Amino acid sequence: MVESSVMKSKSAFTQDERNAVYRAIRERRDVRSGYLSRPLEDDILLKLLSAAHMAPSVGLMQPWRFVVVRDAGLRAAVHDNFLCANRKAEAACPADRRAAYGQLRLEGLLDTPQHLCVVCDSISERGHGLGRNSMPRTASHSVVCAIQNLWLAARAEGIGVGWVSILDPSAIKALLKIPSHLELVAYLCLGYVEGFSALPDLERDEWEQREELASLVRVNYFDQPYPVAEAGQ
Amino acid sequence: MVESSVMKSKSAFTQDERNAVYRAIRERRDVRSGYLSRPLEDDILLKLLSAAHMAPSVGLMQPWRFVVVRDAGLRAAVHDNFLCANRKAEAACPADRRAAYGQLRLEGLLDTPQHLCVVCDSISERGHGLGRNSMPRTASHSVVCAIQNLWLAARAEGIGVGWVSILDPSAIKALLKIPSHLELVAYLCLGYVEGFSALPDLERDEWEQREELASLVRVNYFDQPYPVAEAGQ
Repeated sequence: MVESSVMKSKSAFTQDERNAVYRAIRERRDVRSGYLSRPLEDDILLKLLSAAHMAPSVGLMQPWRFVVVRDAGLRAAVHDNFLCANRKAEAACPADRRAAYGQLRLEGLLDTPQHLCVVCDSISERGHGLGRNSMPRTASHSVVCAIQNLWLAARAEGIGVGWVSILDPSAIKALLKIPSHLELVAYLCLGYVEGFSALPDLERDEWEQREELASLVRVNYFDQPYPVAEAGQ
Repeated sequence: MVESSVMKSKSAFTQDERNAVYRAIRERRDVRSGYLSRPLEDDILLKLLSAAHMAPSVGLMQPWRFVVVRDAGLRAAVHDNFLCANRKAEAACPADRRAAYGQLRLEGLLDTPQHLCVVCDSISERGHGLGRNSMPRTASHSVVCAIQNLWLAARAEGIGVGWVSILDPSAIKALLKIPSHLELVAYLCLGYVEGFSALPDLERDEWEQREELASLVRVNYFDQPYPVAEAGQ
């Protein structure tokens, strides 16, 4: 056992394996429509949660906790919460964008037979505080790594994920009886889908365009562009 | 173009493609030793950054900014910063863990020919505020999704990534001339490696053990265990 624990895997990914990883990254979408009514079976749901559970975490803290929301009444209550938060968000939207905002499809809460609420236990003793002294937000960042693992695994399985951030997290926590010391990191729609859009919905709907990578990469100092990145565009 | 923009991809991943995605998720490690001295070529570095750039982001905000740190003097200065932060962290460590803490290998800052500092522009106008009204931390969470994309792509390419959180983020920002309104989300070591450990380093070194998934999954309410998860363990 000691030998296997220090074993280093030297087998490289094949080109086909690399392509599959990039395919999942490239074709992952934030899905807000086109969900099917068939619920996720327990085994596939656990497979996705196992992928999340393999994420890196500060100090091996594994601070993620998952609440699978299958109850129809709870899902409807979350949707009501969205409607309320969305009215406030729409009112807070710049006037020249408000009409466009009202046209956007921003969630699929009533269409997906299950939701996934992902919370972070930032005060857990697990990990014995390692790595959290100077950058305490690494706990919730570990939870986001887990979410991205799940998102990519879901794409590979033909399952859509939609991150709904237009919610009042305190009210959702109360609804799901989540203790106050836990942080609600993400509330996700999750379900089988008709397919995956070629473009992000917000680009298709002309809400925002994707940025070129080159403008976001610097070398050594933040004020120094990375010349190769610009040439490569 | 309109047709292609609303196209839904219906082609499912093959079993081999799914396996490759799960392999990257399962074999990804937080690498603190065994880095090779050969620098990353620009094309492979840009390939990894492109994978990061395909991450989901709130409102299509894409708030991530990347600083590639290649300069040896800067890398040494970051290592000095680590040493200082680590002395404080070790002092803050529970007394019964301090000796074990001192034995841990927590970074590979002097071994990797390049570092990657990842910051978040939370006040960017991009995305027009969409999704950030009720949950403002979704901006930095988008950046973490990008980091996890990069981490998995790196694993597929045989490149190690190590997230160093024992640093003073304000001092690092000053060193790299990063404007004060940007948030330092992650400081990463990045480089070719000898191989990838079978176990997480912190498990191998008996700092912490991995948790069973079943205890972390609930259904509908936080106080309701997910019975199938428990049975499946």
